[in-house]
Amino acid sequence: MKALGIDIGGTKISYCLINEKGEILNDIEKISTPKTKDDIEKELKNIISKYEKEAEFTAIATAGTVNNSNTKVIGSTANLPSGYKDIDFQGLSNKKVFLENDANCAAIAEAKIGAAKDTKDSITLTLGTGVGGGIIIDGKLLKGKSGAAGEMHFPMSRTPERSCTCGFYDCYEAYASGNGLRRTGIEISKNSDITTYDIIAGVKNDDSISKEILDLWQHDIALGIVGLVNIFDTEVVVLSGSMGEFADTKKIEDFVNKNIVTTKVKIKHAKLSNHCGMIGAVLLGFDKIK
Amino acid sequence: MKALGIDIGGTKISYCLINEKGEILNDIEKISTPKTKDDIEKELKNIISKYEKEAEFTAIATAGTVNNSNTKVIGSTANLPSGYKDIDFQGLSNKKVFLENDANCAAIAEAKIGAAKDTKDSITLTLGTGVGGGIIIDGKLLKGKSGAAGEMHFPMSRTPERSCTCGFYDCYEAYASGNGLRRTGIEISKNSDITTYDIIAGVKNDDSISKEILDLWQHDIALGIVGLVNIFDTEVVVLSGSMGEFADTKKIEDFVNKNIVTTKVKIKHAKLSNHCGMIGAVLLGFDKIK
Repeated sequence: MKALGIDIGGTKISYCLINEKGEILNDIEKISTPKTKDDIEKELKNIISKYEKEAEFTAIATAGTVNNSNTKVIGSTANLPSGYKDIDFQGLSNKKVFLENDANCAAIAEAKIGAAKDTKDSITLTLGTGVGGGIIIDGKLLKGKSGAAGEMHFPMSRTPERSCTCGFYDCYEAYASGNGLRRTGIEISKNSDITTYDIIAGVKNDDSISKEILDLWQHDIALGIVGLVNIFDTEVVVLSGSMGEFADTKKIEDFVNKNIVTTKVKIKHAKLSNHCGMIGAVLLGFDKIK
Repeated sequence: MKALGIDIGGTKISYCLINEKGEILNDIEKISTPKTKDDIEKELKNIISKYEKEAEFTAIATAGTVNNSNTKVIGSTANLPSGYKDIDFQGLSNKKVFLENDANCAAIAEAKIGAAKDTKDSITLTLGTGVGGGIIIDGKLLKGKSGAAGEMHFPMSRTPERSCTCGFYDCYEAYASGNGLRRTGIEISKNSDITTYDIIAGVKNDDSISKEILDLWQHDIALGIVGLVNIFDTEVVVLSGSMGEFADTKKIEDFVNKNIVTTKVKIKHAKLSNHCGMIGAVLLGFDKIK
């Protein structure tokens, strides 16, 4: 059995056929994300109809919060055109269409076939421009009352120090993200033009300021994980996303295990590439049709 | 059907018969907690044998982490004698004996028959000398890989400001607890002898410093709840424990709902008294034998 997996991001839409094992079956195709809701709808309809015969269903990993029945986007999709939330995804296909938030899809994929395989409880942090979170408890995705669970917006300071994209202050996302690394970089280097790229390049060139910035960024990542592990007593925390590879999992694991009150946790890099979104969406879909 | 509920705390052991609805059936009896493991065992044996005919099973709410099969204490019981963890609780009865952490029991009781009744997702914070947490997801207690989930030790600061009983710094417990209130009181009043009682009495007498202290304590409580609600997208947060009544749920609810990215939450005072531990333990036991 196979299904069509689609990943809808702010920049591009990627898609391909994926089987029950989460294996990608053909070349991943990509298009730029259209600028209007109507054009997105039209493109999705084209993509879905192209694969409708072969695929059992369509599974979409999307930015934004997805409701508990996996049919509708209900929250924050800042990088997508207005009206995106109103798309009737099921209306685009004669077969079943499943939706899930991309960070949640990443967590499902890592838990089923990736770095958290063979565990029942795991948390996958998607460290990119922002921070996404997906939490697996007893093999099941934590969704909460409306589907919005897993938001990595918990305060890291009692007094306002750094604004967050969400409108509040000092959320984990404002420190542990790529953008958080840049802001920590500005604070330490006093250079307001410093970029994430500069810092990563500096570390590779053994620059002491860059290393200090990266260390503090990792410390912030670890602090948040201490809290998450005490709350969830999870087995594995997976660091995914474009920034995940720059975090030293060994260092973070040592720090976390030294400072938690619960039992030891493993910190791992993601095993799946940036296709984990569509893979996770398809694996969730297969769970749903069973 | 009825069961024997026992609550084992650092100061006293309370017990009584409780039915399937969580109703207390006789006068609650209390003894001082014995000072040695052997004496605790002896007393528990007496209590259990006294009710063994009438009770279907024994359910114990205890300090410390309880394993996932509800048979053994596996972690931190600072207020109980050494060796407490080694007690073979099942060995004390010919019928089934269930154990669960007291904060988790409170969460079960509030979720089933208390302030979070008719919800599937709730978090109960037990604000006492420390802070206990119990998390209910889809009607089930969150236990984690070893049973230790729900520990309210997540950092409230990126730089060490206040030590925590757990050995780490700036955990939620160090701010949101009764002891946290006292420490906030010392910081604001510069009076190192100030007690929790002084502050509460001061607020009642309209003392401005006391009100400032209580306000900051409530702000810290609310900050932590912002994070928890973003992580869990829970329906209700219940404030239980001896300090719970001093937190203004309306004020906290307004602050939290203004600053979360997930959907609105209700903040409520606990409905059950300090017998919620044994009630929750018995209700869990009835779930288990079903």
